[in-house]
Amino acid sequence: MTTGEIAALVKGELVGDADLELESGHTLEKARETHLAFWKRRPGQKELPPTRAGCVIVDPRTSADGRTLIRSLHPRRAFAQALRSLMAQPAPDAGTDPSAQVDASATIGSRVSIGPHVVIEAGALVGADSVLGSHAFVGGGAVLGRGCRLHPGARVYGNARLGDRVTLHAGAVVGSEGFGLVFETDHYERFPQVGGVEIGSDVEIGANSCVDRGALDDTRIGAGTKLDNLVHIGHNCQIGRHVVMAAQVGLSGGVVVEDHAVLGGQAGIGDRARIGARVQLGGQGGLLPDKTIGPGGAYWGTPARPLREQLARQALVNRLPGVFDEVKRLRAKVEKLEES
Amino acid sequence: MTTGEIAALVKGELVGDADLELESGHTLEKARETHLAFWKRRPGQKELPPTRAGCVIVDPRTSADGRTLIRSLHPRRAFAQALRSLMAQPAPDAGTDPSAQVDASATIGSRVSIGPHVVIEAGALVGADSVLGSHAFVGGGAVLGRGCRLHPGARVYGNARLGDRVTLHAGAVVGSEGFGLVFETDHYERFPQVGGVEIGSDVEIGANSCVDRGALDDTRIGAGTKLDNLVHIGHNCQIGRHVVMAAQVGLSGGVVVEDHAVLGGQAGIGDRARIGARVQLGGQGGLLPDKTIGPGGAYWGTPARPLREQLARQALVNRLPGVFDEVKRLRAKVEKLEES
Amino acid sequence: MTTGEIAALVKGELVGDADLELESGHTLEKARETHLAFWKRRPGQKELPPTRAGCVIVDPRTSADGRTLIRSLHPRRAFAQALRSLMAQPAPDAGTDPSAQVDASATIGSRVSIGPHVVIEAGALVGADSVLGSHAFVGGGAVLGRGCRLHPGARVYGNARLGDRVTLHAGAVVGSEGFGLVFETDHYERFPQVGGVEIGSDVEIGANSCVDRGALDDTRIGAGTKLDNLVHIGHNCQIGRHVVMAAQVGLSGGVVVEDHAVLGGQAGIGDRARIGARVQLGGQGGLLPDKTIGPGGAYWGTPARPLREQLARQALVNRLPGVFDEVKRLRAKVEKLEES
Repeated sequence: MTTGEIAALVKGELVGDADLELESGHTLEKARETHLAFWKRRPGQKELPPTRAGCVIVDPRTSADGRTLIRSLHPRRAFAQALRSLMAQPAPDAGTDPSAQVDASATIGSRVSIGPHVVIEAGALVGADSVLGSHAFVGGGAVLGRGCRLHPGARVYGNARLGDRVTLHAGAVVGSEGFGLVFETDHYERFPQVGGVEIGSDVEIGANSCVDRGALDDTRIGAGTKLDNLVHIGHNCQIGRHVVMAAQVGLSGGVVVEDHAVLGGQAGIGDRARIGARVQLGGQGGLLPDKTIGPGGAYWGTPARPLREQLARQALVNRLPGVFDEVKRLRAKVEKLEES
Repeated sequence: MTTGEIAALVKGELVGDADLELESGHTLEKARETHLAFWKRRPGQKELPPTRAGCVIVDPRTSADGRTLIRSLHPRRAFAQALRSLMAQPAPDAGTDPSAQVDASATIGSRVSIGPHVVIEAGALVGADSVLGSHAFVGGGAVLGRGCRLHPGARVYGNARLGDRVTLHAGAVVGSEGFGLVFETDHYERFPQVGGVEIGSDVEIGANSCVDRGALDDTRIGAGTKLDNLVHIGHNCQIGRHVVMAAQVGLSGGVVVEDHAVLGGQAGIGDRARIGARVQLGGQGGLLPDKTIGPGGAYWGTPARPLREQLARQALVNRLPGVFDEVKRLRAKVEKLEES
Repeated sequence: MTTGEIAALVKGELVGDADLELESGHTLEKARETHLAFWKRRPGQKELPPTRAGCVIVDPRTSADGRTLIRSLHPRRAFAQALRSLMAQPAPDAGTDPSAQVDASATIGSRVSIGPHVVIEAGALVGADSVLGSHAFVGGGAVLGRGCRLHPGARVYGNARLGDRVTLHAGAVVGSEGFGLVFETDHYERFPQVGGVEIGSDVEIGANSCVDRGALDDTRIGAGTKLDNLVHIGHNCQIGRHVVMAAQVGLSGGVVVEDHAVLGGQAGIGDRARIGARVQLGGQGGLLPDKTIGPGGAYWGTPARPLREQLARQALVNRLPGVFDEVKRLRAKVEKLEES
C-alpha cells in the first residue's frame, strides 16, 4: 500500500510523499524505510523522536520537518487500522487435509480450510470461510458461523453454537461440562450438565481458556466480547456484548457480566454475582457470591469495593503508625494530668 | 421415563399423573410439557411459581393444586438423580477408530471406544468400558481402570495409574514433570522427576487442568475428588477423598489436603502446607508454605485465617476513620486541659 | 552405576562399599537396597534416620556406622546430579511416525524423533536431537534449536524462534496472538499482533502455559528461565535469564522481568511493570501497571511492597483491638478530667 492509500483509509491528513510503498509496520525505534509507525505523544514530549520509518502516523500538532506523516486524531487506532490492511494475509487454501476426519453428515460451507488431524463429528455445521487449524475438534451437532477461526487444538463440543467470525485460540475449550455437584451422604454425584453454550459474533477466546456448557440452560457470551488466555467461564454465565476479560480471570457459575465491562487479569467472581455495564474491575479483584457491583465505576480488591474506597482503606493503614504514636503520647499526657 | 418411574427412582411421593412420559429436564422457567423441573423454595417464597413443566420435584410442603408433582426432602438432589437417568446416553460405539494409533503391546479392555487420532503407547492398560475422545494421549505403561473417560485432547503420561470411572476433561494433563529445580552457581538444573501419579476411582479433573508427577514418590488424589478447570496440582501433593477444588486453584509441591476439604476458586497453597479434613477455604485464599489449617472450619484471605477473624479484621479497618477522629478530638481536649 | 562412580560424579567422599550397583533413587523412607537416597538434616536432627537405601548422600558431619555413604556439602544437589545420570533415558528412536505430517519444505536435523499425528508446517526448522511428542504442532517458519523437546500437544506458532534444549510441556502454547485491542466507538478491533517470540536455550515452559507473540516487536524469554504450569506471558514481555515463575503466574503486556528474579505462584504483573534482577515476589503478589520493584529484595502482597513492610502492615492491624480499647479508656479519663 502507498502512503496515500493509507492516509485515505484512516481518513488522515497526508503530509509529504503520497507514493511511498509501505510493506509493514513497526515501532518508531525499529521501523525502517518500508515501515509505517505511529507516535503516541507522551506528556512533555514536544518533538517526534528520530526514526527511520517511511511514514509515521502522528497527532495533528506534529510538524512535518520534511518527513512523510499522516496526521490523525487517534494515531494508535489509525495505525492499527492501517496495519490490519497492510498485513492482511491471504486466507489459507480452502479444502480438507486428507488426515482430517470429517463426518459425512457434517455440513461444511464454501471456502472452508480444514487442517491436518482435525476432527468434525456428525451433524456439525461449519460456516463458509472458516479456518480450522490442526488438531481442532468440532463435536457432533455444533454450529460455527461464517469466518470462524479455530486455532490448533481448539475444541468445540457438540452443545455449542458460535456466531460469525468467532476466534478460538490454541487449546481453547468451549462446551466442557460444568462443575455441578450434589453431595450424597458421603460423596459427590454430578448434577447433570445438559445445557449448551451460545457465543455471539466477533467473540475471541484466548489460548487454553475454558467455557463450560450450562447445567440446564445455556452459557452465553455476547457479540464482540474478548477473553484473553487461561480464562475460566463457569456454567450458566451470562456475559454481555463487548466485554473484555484479561488473562486468568475466573467466573464461577451463573455470573452475569453486562455490556462493556472490563475485568483485569486474575480477577475472580463468585457464583451468581453480577457485574454491571461498563464496570472496570482491577486485576486480582474478587467479587463474592451473589454480590453486585455497578453499573459503571472502577472497583478493586477482595471483596471488590469502589476503587476510591479501596485506596482510602490502604491509606488508613499507612497512617496507623502515626496514630499509634499519638495515642501513646496522649496516654502519657493524660497520666501526667491525672497525677497533677 | 414416566413420572411414576421417576418418583420410584428418587423415592419421592408422586401427586397427580403417574403415566406422563418425560424426555428431559429444564429450569422451572424454560421447562415444557415433556420436561421435569425442580423447585428450590427461596426464603419467603410460598407458592410454586407458574411453570409449563410436565412434572416438578418439590419439597413436602408444596400443595399440588391439580399439578403433577413429586415431593422429596431434597428436590435438587432428586432432580439430579432423575436427570442422570433421563439423560443417560448410550455409550459410544466400542472399537478403535482407524486413525488412532494403539501400540500392539497395550492392553485394551472390552467395549472400549477409542476415537480419532488417539495415541496409546506401549504397555498401557485401558480398562473395560472406557471412552477415549479424539486426540487423547495415553503414555507407555499408564494404567486406566474401568469406565474411564478421556475427553478430547486429554493426556495421561506413562507414570500415571487411574482408578475406575476417572474423568479427564478436554486438555487435562496428568503426569507432567514437576517443577523441581536445583540452583547450581549461576543457573538452574532439574531435580529429576521420576515419581508417578495415582488417582482414585470416581475422580474428575477439569478442562486444561494439570497434575504433576511426583519427584521421587507419587502424587496422589483420593477417590471421589473433583477438580474444576485450570487447576494446578504440584508434584508430591497428597489429596484425600471427596475433596472439591474450584477452578484455577493452585497447589505447590508436597501439599496435603485431607478428605472432604473444599477449596474456592483461585485459592493458592504454598509448598508442604496442610489443609485439614472438611476445611472450607474461600476463593482467592492463600496458605503460606508449611502452614496448617483445620481440620474443620471456614478460612479466608491471604494469609488464610479463620473466616470470622478475617471478617473482623476487615471490620476493624472500617472503624478507623471514626477512631482517627476520636484521637484528634482527644488531643484537642488534652491540650486544652494542659493549658488550664 | 556403582556407588564409586556416583561419588566421583558428584565429587563426594565415599565411605563404605564402592562397588554397590545402584539402579535408581528414592526418598529415605521408601528407598531399597538398589536405591540411592539423600538426607537433608533438619534442625535438631542428629542421626541419619534408619533407611534401607543402598547408599545415602549426606552432609560431611554424618557418621557412617558401617553404612555406605557419600559425603557432600550439598546433599540434595549432589543427589539430583546423580539421579539425572542414573535415570538418563535413552533418546526415543529417531525417525518420523507415518501418521505425522511434515511439510516437504521443513528442515529436520539429525536424530530427530517425530511422534504420531505431529504437524510441522512449511519452512519450519527443527534442530538435531529434538523430540516432538504426539499431537505437537510447529507452525510455518518456526525455528527450534538442537535438543528441543515438545511434549504431547505442545504448540509452537510460526513466529517463534527457540534456542537449544528448550522444553515445552504438554499443551503449552508459544506464539499465540496477544491481547491487543483498540476501542472503536462501540466495539473493539484488534491491534494487529505481528511480532514474534524469541526463547533462549535451556528454557522450560510448563504444561498448558501460554506465551503470546509480540504486537510489533518480539516477546523474549532469556536462557535458562523456567516457567511452571498454566503461566501466562503477555505480548512484548521481556524476561531475563534464569528467571523462575511458579504455576499460574500471569504477566500482562510489555512486562520486564530481569535476570534471576523469582515469582511465586499466582503472582500477577500489570502492563509495562518492571521486576528488577533477583527480586523475590511472594505467591499471589500483584504489581500494578507501570510500577517497578527491585532490583533485589523480597516483596509481597497487592500492591506489592517490601516483604518486611507488608508484614508490618499486617501486624499493625493485629494491634488495632488493643489500640481501640486504649482510645476508649483515654476518652473516659479525659472526660473525668474535664469534669473535675
